[in-house]
Amino acid sequence: MDSKFLQSMNISLDLALEAREIIRGETGQEVPGVRVDKETYDYATVTTVHIEDNNAQVIMGKPVGKYITIEAPVIKENNQQAHREIAQILAEQLKKLFNLPMELNVLVVGLGNWNATPDALGPRVVEQCLVTRHLYNYAPQELQGGMRPVSALAPGVLGITGIETAEIIRGVVEKTRPSLIIAIDSLAARSADRIATTIQLADTGINPGSGIGNKRAGINQETMGVRVIAIGVPTVTHAAIIAQDAIEKYIQSTGGEPKDTSTIIKNLLEPLGGNLTVTPKEIDTLIDDTAQIIAGAINMVMHPGISPEDYAYYLH
Amino acid sequence: MDSKFLQSMNISLDLALEAREIIRGETGQEVPGVRVDKETYDYATVTTVHIEDNNAQVIMGKPVGKYITIEAPVIKENNQQAHREIAQILAEQLKKLFNLPMELNVLVVGLGNWNATPDALGPRVVEQCLVTRHLYNYAPQELQGGMRPVSALAPGVLGITGIETAEIIRGVVEKTRPSLIIAIDSLAARSADRIATTIQLADTGINPGSGIGNKRAGINQETMGVRVIAIGVPTVTHAAIIAQDAIEKYIQSTGGEPKDTSTIIKNLLEPLGGNLTVTPKEIDTLIDDTAQIIAGAINMVMHPGISPEDYAYYLH
Amino acid sequence: MDSKFLQSMNISLDLALEAREIIRGETGQEVPGVRVDKETYDYATVTTVHIEDNNAQVIMGKPVGKYITIEAPVIKENNQQAHREIAQILAEQLKKLFNLPMELNVLVVGLGNWNATPDALGPRVVEQCLVTRHLYNYAPQELQGGMRPVSALAPGVLGITGIETAEIIRGVVEKTRPSLIIAIDSLAARSADRIATTIQLADTGINPGSGIGNKRAGINQETMGVRVIAIGVPTVTHAAIIAQDAIEKYIQSTGGEPKDTSTIIKNLLEPLGGNLTVTPKEIDTLIDDTAQIIAGAINMVMHPGISPEDYAYYLH
Amino acid sequence: MDSKFLQSMNISLDLALEAREIIRGETGQEVPGVRVDKETYDYATVTTVHIEDNNAQVIMGKPVGKYITIEAPVIKENNQQAHREIAQILAEQLKKLFNLPMELNVLVVGLGNWNATPDALGPRVVEQCLVTRHLYNYAPQELQGGMRPVSALAPGVLGITGIETAEIIRGVVEKTRPSLIIAIDSLAARSADRIATTIQLADTGINPGSGIGNKRAGINQETMGVRVIAIGVPTVTHAAIIAQDAIEKYIQSTGGEPKDTSTIIKNLLEPLGGNLTVTPKEIDTLIDDTAQIIAGAINMVMHPGISPEDYAYYLH
Repeated sequence: MDSKFLQSMNISLDLALEAREIIRGETGQEVPGVRVDKETYDYATVTTVHIEDNNAQVIMGKPVGKYITIEAPVIKENNQQAHREIAQILAEQLKKLFNLPMELNVLVVGLGNWNATPDALGPRVVEQCLVTRHLYNYAPQELQGGMRPVSALAPGVLGITGIETAEIIRGVVEKTRPSLIIAIDSLAARSADRIATTIQLADTGINPGSGIGNKRAGINQETMGVRVIAIGVPTVTHAAIIAQDAIEKYIQSTGGEPKDTSTIIKNLLEPLGGNLTVTPKEIDTLIDDTAQIIAGAINMVMHPGISPEDYAYYLH
Repeated sequence: MDSKFLQSMNISLDLALEAREIIRGETGQEVPGVRVDKETYDYATVTTVHIEDNNAQVIMGKPVGKYITIEAPVIKENNQQAHREIAQILAEQLKKLFNLPMELNVLVVGLGNWNATPDALGPRVVEQCLVTRHLYNYAPQELQGGMRPVSALAPGVLGITGIETAEIIRGVVEKTRPSLIIAIDSLAARSADRIATTIQLADTGINPGSGIGNKRAGINQETMGVRVIAIGVPTVTHAAIIAQDAIEKYIQSTGGEPKDTSTIIKNLLEPLGGNLTVTPKEIDTLIDDTAQIIAGAINMVMHPGISPEDYAYYLH
Repeated sequence: MDSKFLQSMNISLDLALEAREIIRGETGQEVPGVRVDKETYDYATVTTVHIEDNNAQVIMGKPVGKYITIEAPVIKENNQQAHREIAQILAEQLKKLFNLPMELNVLVVGLGNWNATPDALGPRVVEQCLVTRHLYNYAPQELQGGMRPVSALAPGVLGITGIETAEIIRGVVEKTRPSLIIAIDSLAARSADRIATTIQLADTGINPGSGIGNKRAGINQETMGVRVIAIGVPTVTHAAIIAQDAIEKYIQSTGGEPKDTSTIIKNLLEPLGGNLTVTPKEIDTLIDDTAQIIAGAINMVMHPGISPEDYAYYLH
Repeated sequence: MDSKFLQSMNISLDLALEAREIIRGETGQEVPGVRVDKETYDYATVTTVHIEDNNAQVIMGKPVGKYITIEAPVIKENNQQAHREIAQILAEQLKKLFNLPMELNVLVVGLGNWNATPDALGPRVVEQCLVTRHLYNYAPQELQGGMRPVSALAPGVLGITGIETAEIIRGVVEKTRPSLIIAIDSLAARSADRIATTIQLADTGINPGSGIGNKRAGINQETMGVRVIAIGVPTVTHAAIIAQDAIEKYIQSTGGEPKDTSTIIKNLLEPLGGNLTVTPKEIDTLIDDTAQIIAGAINMVMHPGISPEDYAYYLH
């Protein structure tokens, strides 16, 4: 699959790691201006793609910044012990992306739609975040050392609110003045085996063209006026990608030359009603597990002074 | 039950109709500055309590304004034909409360908590509202005559967001500049037979002390800068009220004199963990039905030019 | 796509209409022993495939019997008026399949898994069925003319119960002695545009190899000892089918010859974790609407003496 | 509150511990034929009420047998570490109630209604049980030492199925021949502070008059032909009890004599529509936490050979 096909199908790759793979596949070499680090853990591999200059930004279709990818197939296995370890790895990586005095506000934003399973990741994370901002005003006696003022918002999607999601968030940002935003979103992967096994952290926020929802304006430093860290997990892949992969495998098997197949695939999918997504059958459970891992990591990083047993006390 | 008991238990009466009943019970006459109208329908009685001056405002504990109460026990009966009629009555009453050129924005706000059944009414209404504001920008060709720009928001509750609900709404209002807000909320009734059988419309918005959620700041003209119409439905009653009613009935039966029982009731309820609410066993279903009636009425009033069959086309 | 490919991928076609199309596509003529009728309505086409002899049974991979398919793309449009008409058409077709004295018991069985969106159709229908069997014992005074004793069961799926679904149903059948079973199930379609637009009624019950769940034993006259009418709706299609369709379209475009591609497709999908299903993004809503249509039709047929407004009275 | 009042209100006490308290309160001495043991843990007190003879059975209104009550207010605090300890205590107590060779079948039955929050405990437990019975037939290679054949069923409630719950279970028991049934149920408590803080284990199964659902026939050795262990948790209390407690506290405060107040309370509650239940506001969360504790304990006892990390592998 090449970048031209994706463009013609109007598919943007949410994972920087996948964007890089495609481009390297086409050029046979590392993308200029892109640098890559790798760490290995028991249950996960962590790869950081640094997009370092404007040129790389154009080629990769993603702003200059750091894109940390945690690949952990064990998330799918529903092994709670391993899930806790993934949450810890995510917490460590998240900590690297900001350096904020403890007294400053953080706003967690859960993008997506409560009522559409693969798009519900963000709201589910919000629900499990330990929010404390209101306690500083209303119940300071309940606070202890090592906590931060955290608030959380699930703004909904354009089709349900009629309001650009970025507008809602900006409105709330102007009222609550956070010093950092952490935005959680469902992503679309190029490869279906990344669904609920890969977590991407990006210090560039969320940028137009990303995600499976209706997000036309970016949620980033430029639009929000504060830094935005995005945490995304692929929850679907496009039917068009499965179709294209199949054709490519076929052409390979015949020893033929790759061809432009975008018209064929459009003709195949359009009569089927569009908007076809591919998910594993157990997606409901996978969303539950992934939301728990992400909320767990955010809670650890936000409130280092208290243990999971203690902060349970603060959960609504 | 008298107003002193309610004050000592920190219970405010959400329904103007009930506040008036209490006061009339104490004084034996109509509250000065309060005027009442009544209309009768097949399935419903509509009573409008007009609080007309400052004096009445102080006595009633509610701002000057109109409080329209639709009493319709049939809502509990799950009779769909009757439910449609109640939606129509609600639509008629709602129309009386504002006069807005069709091109001006309306924002529907669903207060309350998705994840607590009796408090989920507002978010459920939002989910079924026909929002159109985004179509004016993104898909004007999908609009037709007799529609308005409507947007909708379920801001969550303080315990989940860490942000005062009024702050979130004000942030969004400043961005989207609606000319009217319609706010939906779950109420607490004095009388348990009002649960899911009574709908209150108030042209005064939502004011401190109302509702069962955590709402410290009002959502009204003063805080929002635009008119706020509140639509509320009782979904719970307080355990303290059941307790007090029982003691009163007992005293009556003995021919004794009413006494201050607030200490007795506090001593009874506090060891039980507080926050005890009384609901009918079938509350999950009642919330579903009531949300459908309210969303139906809002859709009719907002988009008079199109029939329910047509606006289905616009629903996400 | 030919039947050989489907066999090699272990995919059985749940819709008789699709099975026939495939075979006719291969042979260029009507399947011997198969007869087809067609009716046309405003919002729907109804096609009945009669499998009339053993030979046809072997070719079609489905038992001798009637397979009525209602094709109604309007289901996807969320037009409530049209949905009521589809429910009426379904009711008419259902009535044709049995002739049962009013006093005999009917058991509705909702197959599938509550907690997996595309597999939740059956349990959702059960929840909305008007059950009356218990009233004959406990509250006969609540019954009126034109009602039947109906009971309903959502037995769960093998992975959650550890028990063959057919065993659970047979156990209940032996206790309650129904004279007819109506079994509701989610199906897999060959063509994704059939998802939530096609309803199949079969007087042969549910037979091994059908459906997306784990149903190894049939639910039919033979296993249950009473007639079983199956009502199924496609809610997913297989990723393998999208892949194969894409390859075929490609080969067509090159003017090449069809080839066996099952190995290519297995090599493509197996590393992706298997169990990939393709659904429209709005599947949560589509399941809600379809369940309402089916339950509505069953209620009309079971209790002809009472109108929807009246039977609301009986719903839990 | 005395037993006469409860009888006249048609309220039966689900917790043996509460029944004993009432009777001791009336007689001032231990109930003859009742013996009580107590153990103390960090987070819980475990009291076992032994009903030892027919006389005690009549007085207590519960069959001869063991009733183990775990009182653990920490369940309400959402402290996950403490919850795991409660699960372990529950597991230990459960183990004491049976002695079954590892190869014999166990059936877990989750009573109650999915769609009514306080009644959903049983189905939620079923969903989290590690079922294995089917693996013995279909995938024996996935089993390892220290596992048992377990199956699970959520039969629904009479109002949704139209079938006596006991009939459904008996049908399944005749097909699957378990050697033990563990039945999970929501209970009604006399004291609201027991909601989601008390767990009762009874080796007598579930007997008529217990629970908040519609369960007319017992689920016990006599009706099922095998032993039934019941695990119940109070999730509601009756409004009538709050009312009565209030009157009693009032009478105490006046130094008066207790009187029969059942008519007063009926006159109070009947116009309110009946079926009023009292729950803490956070009941949705409490049900989630309690279900997790119970399922965790059952999984530990059923499959001692594998650790929670490993059995995650088996969960659907």
